[in-house]
Amino acid sequence: MKINENFLKLQSSYLFSTIGKKVGEYSAANPKAQIIRLGIGDVTRPLPSEVIDSLHKAADEMANEETFRGYPPEQGNDFLISSIKEYDYKLRDVNIDEDEIFISDGAKSDTGNIGDIFSQDNAVAVCDPIYPVYVDTNVMAGRSGELTNEGKWSKFIYLDCNQENDFFPGIPKEKADLIYLCFPNNPTGMAADKAYLKKWVDYANENSSVILYDAAYEGFITQDNIPHSIYEVQGAKTCAIEFRSFSKTAGFTGVRCAYTIVPKELKCGDVSLNSLWARRQATKFNGVSYITQRAAQAVYSEKGRAQVMGNIAYYQNNAKVISEGLKEAGFKVWGAVNSPYVWFKVPQKMTSWDFFDLMLEKTQVVGTPGSGFGPAGEGYFRLTGFGSSAKTLEAVDRIKNARF
Amino acid sequence: MKINENFLKLQSSYLFSTIGKKVGEYSAANPKAQIIRLGIGDVTRPLPSEVIDSLHKAADEMANEETFRGYPPEQGNDFLISSIKEYDYKLRDVNIDEDEIFISDGAKSDTGNIGDIFSQDNAVAVCDPIYPVYVDTNVMAGRSGELTNEGKWSKFIYLDCNQENDFFPGIPKEKADLIYLCFPNNPTGMAADKAYLKKWVDYANENSSVILYDAAYEGFITQDNIPHSIYEVQGAKTCAIEFRSFSKTAGFTGVRCAYTIVPKELKCGDVSLNSLWARRQATKFNGVSYITQRAAQAVYSEKGRAQVMGNIAYYQNNAKVISEGLKEAGFKVWGAVNSPYVWFKVPQKMTSWDFFDLMLEKTQVVGTPGSGFGPAGEGYFRLTGFGSSAKTLEAVDRIKNARF
Repeated sequence: MKINENFLKLQSSYLFSTIGKKVGEYSAANPKAQIIRLGIGDVTRPLPSEVIDSLHKAADEMANEETFRGYPPEQGNDFLISSIKEYDYKLRDVNIDEDEIFISDGAKSDTGNIGDIFSQDNAVAVCDPIYPVYVDTNVMAGRSGELTNEGKWSKFIYLDCNQENDFFPGIPKEKADLIYLCFPNNPTGMAADKAYLKKWVDYANENSSVILYDAAYEGFITQDNIPHSIYEVQGAKTCAIEFRSFSKTAGFTGVRCAYTIVPKELKCGDVSLNSLWARRQATKFNGVSYITQRAAQAVYSEKGRAQVMGNIAYYQNNAKVISEGLKEAGFKVWGAVNSPYVWFKVPQKMTSWDFFDLMLEKTQVVGTPGSGFGPAGEGYFRLTGFGSSAKTLEAVDRIKNARF
Repeated sequence: MKINENFLKLQSSYLFSTIGKKVGEYSAANPKAQIIRLGIGDVTRPLPSEVIDSLHKAADEMANEETFRGYPPEQGNDFLISSIKEYDYKLRDVNIDEDEIFISDGAKSDTGNIGDIFSQDNAVAVCDPIYPVYVDTNVMAGRSGELTNEGKWSKFIYLDCNQENDFFPGIPKEKADLIYLCFPNNPTGMAADKAYLKKWVDYANENSSVILYDAAYEGFITQDNIPHSIYEVQGAKTCAIEFRSFSKTAGFTGVRCAYTIVPKELKCGDVSLNSLWARRQATKFNGVSYITQRAAQAVYSEKGRAQVMGNIAYYQNNAKVISEGLKEAGFKVWGAVNSPYVWFKVPQKMTSWDFFDLMLEKTQVVGTPGSGFGPAGEGYFRLTGFGSSAKTLEAVDRIKNARF
């Protein structure tokens, strides 16, 4: 047999293993050190009680012949789809049809698998820095070309995000076919407003491009002028696929539920991308656990929404504490306002990894080097609001006292 | 953008929608008819109480900060992996390492997604009749060529299963790179012994082919000489990937848990397919729900195994009742012994669909036309043991009385 040689182009993802190794070595040399980990993008608060109750109820349904459920509908159960339609879209004056909503096990799966419906021959535009899945899945699919000396893939169109553009990349001069955008952004924590997104929507409609819009962090938006969905922007339905997740909003990273919107108006010639994705999912996916879908539905109940908002507020407050602490300590800071992520510039003439080592040494706080998210992340650093509030406060105190 | 044009080659899967339409029309015309559906491949028995208890316990763990779980390990939780290693393999004298076991949300996902690690340029061998996912996913991936007038794809190597070879296809003369085998088989219900599988393993090792072995129905095996895993056959670790599922064995079709074995010895040149699949899953999948994995682990407890065996025995008995009833009614019958599926020849000069209509008319029993599984299924019919025992007995009585 012949393997997919594109896989061999990928380097192993050393980022988090390198972090783990460095922290392990430091711990071994300093066994009494109280290390605080604010590098992770994973939730830590327990599931809301409404969700727990729903899990129990659905589990009991599976125990009786009369209420037992076999294969779920491939696109998702009506009860969850109608809640999404109502609360995530209709309440924001966006009309999404039931058959445009595809329930899945995760936004990572969907942002990866969506590539199946596109030809290999598409020009891919990616932000830099970026969530690595968009890059790696397109390398696997043969859309990347070769890795250059500056750490970029030869065929990708890079959308540089930096201090100069406030981490909102400009529209490229080239014609991009598939454009990955993520707002609120991971890793920079920046959230786009409608005017900014409108430029991308217009560009995509003019160039017959598709925007692959990752809105996994929309639950963290606090400012009224920031859209939660790209479909709040006029014209987006003919050019955008939107990925949503219960992971960061409802704390479902360990439960696994997400959904993707593929509007029927989004077409390539006569072919609706909705029908292609429906075929892909019906053929290569067997639906999401009934129990999980009931748990997700509970997120939309009155109590459930209140509880979810409580958890988000907890993380938002952590991010605010970190952001303000870093500013007091003299750092230039982005993100946090509409995001669990805090992104900041490391001291001059240091690399992201230099700063990682220095911060570990001086404060025993672990973060994520910006260069791990792409070449343009060099010189920046990410901390997250997903830790406990007590440890977050302690970490910020240590950073302020360290006088970097 | 450009779409993946291979999707356009696929015809919509009319099989089950056509069945639904015909049954709907019959019901409308005969509102008092007591229709019995034995066409489905979905389980109907409730989950074992050990599994339910485990679901509740894991849900409660998610309710407390101390025991809450975020992202699952991408390859699966150790507790489930070690149970699989022990009970599904070591007890059968097969040694599988922990890092050769990949937990997933379904065998359908895995048998579909596995194509990602192979080049487009591979000759695919498929049985006929066959579970349509193997065919459709390879059409999507561009490995099929064009559909011919006889309903076959021009580039596929077809392994005809028929009365003459007792539904065990012979080794092809051509060189096949990727070979899909499913035993116990869906739809024919036939189970392969070691001597038969050894021929495929030898062929694959000689030709550097990969056998994609779907063992989703191994739990139904009753005969001692039938291997549950292809790795019980010497030499399989250098040529086979095995797909397993909790769907049909433990009734998990609505819970979603499966696993795939990719041995480290299985290589293409110097490249281990295990590392490719690990990379694929780490990049495009985010692991299985913690709660689901705890439920799957419960299947391996002493009580859990006993309860699962009870459910399987229930379906096995249904299949036996159908098989014996059909034989008494004069049909030539295959399967059932090691499978929930009963496969039989329809009366001479009838097509599978003719018989579907006739059986619905005369007995109000719904089955699946063999031609729905591929051209070589024409003239055959599938019934399943997944119904209730009372309705299964009633259906068999009606068939016997109908005197086809």
